[in-house]
Amino acid sequence: MTDKLTIWTYDWVPEGPRGFVRDLRLRWAAEEAGLAYEVGTVPFEDRATNHLDRQPFGQAPFLTEGKLTVFESGAGLLHLARKSEMLMPRDAAGEAETLEWTIAALNSIEMVTVPWWFLKMSGQADNALVGWMDQRLSQIEAVLREREWLAAGRLTVADLLMADVLRVPDVRAHGDRPASEGYVKRLTARPAFLKARSDQMAHFAAADPA
Amino acid sequence: MTDKLTIWTYDWVPEGPRGFVRDLRLRWAAEEAGLAYEVGTVPFEDRATNHLDRQPFGQAPFLTEGKLTVFESGAGLLHLARKSEMLMPRDAAGEAETLEWTIAALNSIEMVTVPWWFLKMSGQADNALVGWMDQRLSQIEAVLREREWLAAGRLTVADLLMADVLRVPDVRAHGDRPASEGYVKRLTARPAFLKARSDQMAHFAAADPA
Repeated sequence: MTDKLTIWTYDWVPEGPRGFVRDLRLRWAAEEAGLAYEVGTVPFEDRATNHLDRQPFGQAPFLTEGKLTVFESGAGLLHLARKSEMLMPRDAAGEAETLEWTIAALNSIEMVTVPWWFLKMSGQADNALVGWMDQRLSQIEAVLREREWLAAGRLTVADLLMADVLRVPDVRAHGDRPASEGYVKRLTARPAFLKARSDQMAHFAAADPA
Repeated sequence: MTDKLTIWTYDWVPEGPRGFVRDLRLRWAAEEAGLAYEVGTVPFEDRATNHLDRQPFGQAPFLTEGKLTVFESGAGLLHLARKSEMLMPRDAAGEAETLEWTIAALNSIEMVTVPWWFLKMSGQADNALVGWMDQRLSQIEAVLREREWLAAGRLTVADLLMADVLRVPDVRAHGDRPASEGYVKRLTARPAFLKARSDQMAHFAAADPA
């Protein structure tokens, strides 16, 4: 008997972030790997304080599996990747490449794109992060011009994460980067992504007031 | 026979970043774990283009071990953690906690502190990231008020990384957070940290023009 895997997200969010809340990353990976999971909810209201015992930053998602809890979407993805070779090869080189590109998506790309987006949304579109982001996005564009997948010559969890980072509409609309655009289109056309997104949309819509 | 572990960093950097270049994270972890390593260098000049074949963002550090290359300091830390139980427990819960706190340091704390610092250095100290950073730093302060180590009730690689993220002077000087300050002082008083920092300082100083 294996422990039940549960992906935890908010009970509801406004329309804006639907399709982008990060439980989608974990749903997508589980769908690609054929891992059975349930979805649990925490309240969206007062989220910064109401589930700090389970997620110290009051964020979603987190995973539970029996007595295990794993917060941070990146950690959840690596946890799922240990459970399925579909998400990460088992040879040392394939594993190292998957790991480095997963961390690159989080700490070299998203570390610039998310704060840039946050400043833009806050009315500070003209900020010093723009040049830094341009450099990083052109570096990843150069990589994606050369290859179809980031790691190990095949789909890995690093691609799911990088595509999720790059598909943010404001990022996608920033500059002309055809290889990145093709990569995002290709990854987000996968049945596992489409199911994960449609399940997330339905989950939040079901909680809308009648 | 095991493959030789090499930590790659720049041949030289100006005085400002000395003691903070991220090869220090890998040196520190290797020192804690008693892993033998050598130090290799890539040129600091034209770094954004001159080693893109080995690091797609032109950054340091990266690790090599025989034919393996691992870039991104966070990925390098997790790679070293697989090699030594000193850096990460081997039970499922201890491993999950180490993983989630490692990613939290990279994607929940450093994702705010580094862009904030970058804007501050660029003369945009008054920016919309300040409130977000205040929230994240008070959340990690609340965690560190309750416990000595982030994961598994013992030192792990997550503590080395979080302490390295929190010890940045501008971050340390921002607000009054006694538990975080105590944590940084305690971690950076460790012999393995002191050796790693002093080795890094000596490495860069040795390349100074006579």
